[in-house]
Parts: sequence; structure tokens; C-alpha cells
Amino acid sequence: MRYGARNQIKAKVVSVKKGDVMSQVRFTVENPHEMQSVLTTESVEDLDLKPGETVLLAVKAVHVIPIKE
Amino acid sequence: MRYGARNQIKAKVVSVKKGDVMSQVRFTVENPHEMQSVLTTESVEDLDLKPGETVLLAVKAVHVIPIKE
Amino acid sequence: MRYGARNQIKAKVVSVKKGDVMSQVRFTVENPHEMQSVLTTESVEDLDLKPGETVLLAVKAVHVIPIKE
Amino acid sequence: MRYGARNQIKAKVVSVKKGDVMSQVRFTVENPHEMQSVLTTESVEDLDLKPGETVLLAVKAVHVIPIKE
Amino acid sequence: MRYGARNQIKAKVVSVKKGDVMSQVRFTVENPHEMQSVLTTESVEDLDLKPGETVLLAVKAVHVIPIKE
Amino acid sequence: MRYGARNQIKAKVVSVKKGDVMSQVRFTVENPHEMQSVLTTESVEDLDLKPGETVLLAVKAVHVIPIKE
Repeated sequence: MRYGARNQIKAKVVSVKKGDVMSQVRFTVENPHEMQSVLTTESVEDLDLKPGETVLLAVKAVHVIPIKE
Repeated sequence: MRYGARNQIKAKVVSVKKGDVMSQVRFTVENPHEMQSVLTTESVEDLDLKPGETVLLAVKAVHVIPIKE
Repeated sequence: MRYGARNQIKAKVVSVKKGDVMSQVRFTVENPHEMQSVLTTESVEDLDLKPGETVLLAVKAVHVIPIKE
Repeated sequence: MRYGARNQIKAKVVSVKKGDVMSQVRFTVENPHEMQSVLTTESVEDLDLKPGETVLLAVKAVHVIPIKE
Repeated sequence: MRYGARNQIKAKVVSVKKGDVMSQVRFTVENPHEMQSVLTTESVEDLDLKPGETVLLAVKAVHVIPIKE
Repeated sequence: MRYGARNQIKAKVVSVKKGDVMSQVRFTVENPHEMQSVLTTESVEDLDLKPGETVLLAVKAVHVIPIKE
């Protein structure tokens, strides 16, 4: 099984909050892993991103797809 | 500074690959952290997500926003 | 009317489930149609996508925009 | 294998256009299938979506994730 | 024509930068307009959003769909 | 503070509608500002976007991230 998504993170379910249409699930990630971002080259230059720098990666919860293998 | 995004992960830049319009940046995440997903209640039931289970979280790289503080 | 979205699929509403803030709408698509995906070149190579191969296209429901003409 | 994405469409690769960072892949979908959309209840009411009506579903190509099983 | 997207902003094209696969288009918005965000109720409470407050709305360029009428 | 998102719009909260899991927030934008879109080069050509033309920019509310500074 191979996915066309650069970020694939093993995580453990902590809690599930069920709503009428949408639900919110909380996970913990214990292991070191890789993340990737694709953004405009212009943004990379504005942020002046360089190897070794620490940043915050923000991801809205609606963009996270859980897969159960 | 507070962000309306449930996932906020501290990460270190590993490499930057600049393209004509879009660029791809690779990060490492060393520390344990939390992730959250919002999906339909129907999906939660199909996946039968329960506390303690391990899943794979897939996120396309275009949905990851680096923030430099 | 022309849209800056590569996927434009004619579909028929099957059901509407209204929630407090979000609603979920189900559609059927009867006719053959085209789909497009944009992903990193790296992902294309990892997946080794080639003409003629069958894949599964996953799209979260929050990314689907109904338009009524 | 179960995915936390309401839309899962079997499709065949037609062509692959590789770019420096991003690539574009074209697929055909031959079989009838279901689609789902999650939107605000307010949008559902503005659009006045009702069973039996035909709409256009727009999805940006960046939101489509190919999975190879 | 009605769209299932809460944000519909009239804008004027300023420049187009064409890349091999992806292109970047810049627009100006002259008129006052409305914006909407859907986020978790938990995020709303963390941010403590209240009428009258000023915030920054961040939107990745890949999520903006131009429509030509 | 610098964000890897091309669209950063100053806006004022008008109303907050809290749901069980998701909430909807309405903002007004008073000042002229810039917007950017990234789409396939093919879409740019289909739309035939040129400087000076007026278009409608559609953005789903789930893609808007409020940031409180």
C-alpha cells in the first residue's frame, strides 16, 4: 500500500469526540518522524528557510486523514 | 500568538528543494507530540476508531504551513 | 463560467444530513468522467504511477465544493 | 484497509506530467460511484440542495490523493 | 450560479507567473468584504474569539479557486 | 512572525456560532489587500487569466485559519 501523501505518521488514538456530522479525534505520536511541506518558492524565500532551523508546522485538523491498516 | 489550527508541531528543516513556482521542504520531528483529525462521524464509525489503536495519519504536503517565530 | 479546479463532476444529490454547523451531502455520479491529481514528483515516483494502472483516489468530503448552475 | 476519507474512487491513470517539484496526473473513472461533500449548513441552505437535483462538484487537483494497493 | 464555499471575493488579476505544472496568480481586492472560517469549537475557545477583535486570516494559495464568470 | 501562507488578511470578528465539534466565525475585511492563488498552469490557460481581469475567488471556510497576535 502506497499513498500519494508525503506525510505518513504512525499515531495512537487518545480520544474520540463524536458530533452530529463531524467528529474530532486526538492522537499521540511517540516516535521521531519526518514531515514535508510544499509551499510557494516565494514563501520559502520570505521565510528564509534553511537547514537546521526550527519552525512550527501548522496543519488544520480537517486535513489529517486517519488510515486503519 | 495563537493559531486556529489544532496541529502545531515543532520541527527542524532538513532540506529545501526550490522549484519554479512551488518548493518542497523536508523537516524532522524529534519530540513526542499530539495530532488531531476532524472527519465525518460516519468515517469515525466506518474506521471504528477507539482509544489505544494505532493508525496511520496521512497529510498532503500542501496542507502543512511552516511558521517562523 | 470557468473554474480554476481541475475536477468538475456532474452529480445528483441523494441525501442531505444537516448538522448544527456542518452538513453532509451525498451524491451519485453516473457518467464516466476524468479526475486529476497534483502531487509531488517524489510521490509520483514512489507510487510509480504509469498509464493504464488502477489506483484509488481518496478525497476528504470537506474538499468537495457543490456548485448549482 | 480503511480510509478516513468519504470519497474513494477507482480510477485508471491516463497520463503523468512530471514537473520540477509538482506533477500532474490524469485519470479516467468509468464506473458509477458515490461522492460526498461536507460544507456549512448555511451553504446547504443557500444552495437549497435537495435530493434529485444535479450539481457540479468542484475539487482542486491538489486535494486528490492517489493510493496504490 | 451559487457556490458551496462561504468565501467569494471579487478580485482583479495583477500578475500571472507560469511554472511547468503549477502557476501562481496575484490579485488585488479593493472592496470591503466578508470572510468566514470553520474551525474546531476547541480552537475557537483557545483563541477566545469575540466580536470586535482583530485577527489575521491565513489561507494557503493552493486553497484559492479563481472563477471566471 | 512569518507564515508560509501567501494570503494573510487582517479581519475583524463579527460573530461566532459554536457547534458541538465545529464552529463558524464570520469576519469583515475593511482594507484593500492582496490575494494569491496557486493552480495548475493548465487551469490558468483554460481560464485565460490576464492582468486587469476581474474574477471571483472562492475559498471554503475550512481553509481559513484565524491567528491571534
